[in-house]
Amino acid sequence: MPAPSRRRITGFSNPTVKFLRSLRDKKHRRREGRFLAEGLRLLTDARESGFAPEILVMAERRDPHPLADALERAVEETGGTIVETTPEILSRITGKDNPQAIAGVFREFDTSLAALDRSRAPIWLVAQALRDPGNLGTMLRTGDAVGAGGLILIDDCADPFGVEAVRASMGAIFTQRIAQAAWDAFLPWLRSGPGQLVAASLRDAVPYRGAPYAAPCFILVGNESRGLPECYEAACDLRVTMPMRGRADSLNAAVAGAVLAYEVLASLDP
Amino acid sequence: MPAPSRRRITGFSNPTVKFLRSLRDKKHRRREGRFLAEGLRLLTDARESGFAPEILVMAERRDPHPLADALERAVEETGGTIVETTPEILSRITGKDNPQAIAGVFREFDTSLAALDRSRAPIWLVAQALRDPGNLGTMLRTGDAVGAGGLILIDDCADPFGVEAVRASMGAIFTQRIAQAAWDAFLPWLRSGPGQLVAASLRDAVPYRGAPYAAPCFILVGNESRGLPECYEAACDLRVTMPMRGRADSLNAAVAGAVLAYEVLASLDP
Repeated sequence: MPAPSRRRITGFSNPTVKFLRSLRDKKHRRREGRFLAEGLRLLTDARESGFAPEILVMAERRDPHPLADALERAVEETGGTIVETTPEILSRITGKDNPQAIAGVFREFDTSLAALDRSRAPIWLVAQALRDPGNLGTMLRTGDAVGAGGLILIDDCADPFGVEAVRASMGAIFTQRIAQAAWDAFLPWLRSGPGQLVAASLRDAVPYRGAPYAAPCFILVGNESRGLPECYEAACDLRVTMPMRGRADSLNAAVAGAVLAYEVLASLDP
Repeated sequence: MPAPSRRRITGFSNPTVKFLRSLRDKKHRRREGRFLAEGLRLLTDARESGFAPEILVMAERRDPHPLADALERAVEETGGTIVETTPEILSRITGKDNPQAIAGVFREFDTSLAALDRSRAPIWLVAQALRDPGNLGTMLRTGDAVGAGGLILIDDCADPFGVEAVRASMGAIFTQRIAQAAWDAFLPWLRSGPGQLVAASLRDAVPYRGAPYAAPCFILVGNESRGLPECYEAACDLRVTMPMRGRADSLNAAVAGAVLAYEVLASLDP
């Protein structure tokens, strides 16, 4: 086990500050294979899910706090680095005037389809071209709540490792598996094993209540403005429709996924 | 009927530009009793719901578009003002580099409880201290979908007339009634007529599926981080619990409201 290190940083031009700051940018996250999570609650969620940050950054001379102490111990046990710094530098790293007093750097997870074990859970969420990081994080959170195995991101989605998605996931980024794939790779993978692909649709659909859901059930949600491409819907095993009593004919993508996921949960596990 | 007016504005310091720009700020919205909605789709939603903007702002020399033409006609018929301006000034008004080519100023609605007719709909959404304007807009959109009458905002919520909430509502700001009230005013109003107050809760709750919902059903959702105060939950007629199969014990507020609202809809109108 490598020896833990503890450092104090007071200069804005320190390379570690630059590195941490760079993780707010997707390009740099990808290159480094690392992402940033902020706040004591989120870092505690990570720890309780078995993930210690490689680097833990905190305000120097912080007040004693049992959860922050537990984080420090977890980092020490796993040979990570603890960085103490000033509130000004924390602001610089997080890009916020009023930063959380603590942040951590984590290694990005393997997001290949090959790493998914579909037998792990009866429900999986699938999002296509989901552009809003808040929606993405909310879907992770919903997945955690319904006992889903994870979230599969199809085509060009928001980055699940971006600060906003991580925050909106409320810790589910550490409990849900995440995969990223093009549709042309996802569909053969899905068909290589058991799995029912379900989408909310207005075309050739049955009512979503009482529809014949089957595990493992993959719930597919489309892009926020355009919905799903017609040929994606056509590839589904089951198309279901939800009541739309108002003027509009659609729901927020994360909301539609959640309503459907709770229905599937009730159906599979009454 | 007052004569419609049509004006061209090319100067950044024009008072109308300053007025429009000021509507991005809650304090000015409140003082003026006006709010801004942006984009052809949203303005068309408004028109189709019977609302024409008092001022319609659009890029000069725009391409012909039947929906934009229809908006112009609606403004002319209601005696509003049409302002044509430059893309730069539109950017200034909307605060975006790449502004929608069209925006409208609307009169804020009466948000008093007294203006609500609870017999209008079987479902009403109620949010307490909902801070995120995106969540607020999403709840309006969900309300539209389930045929709710409107959204009642309790205590200190995000501003429903802010640009982000209006955008996230996807037009439902024009179909759902909105009321704002302190809890101490809401509860007596509720008890002054028929109405079942329902909250998702972990305390003394029954399963949300198959719970004895009754119309008009008021679905109460709490603050994003703190949930509902215990005494608010205690005042509810029905506390229901949703399965939480993961590590966390809560859902995004707008998601929880939607899952519950669809369950109530199915129960009241099977």
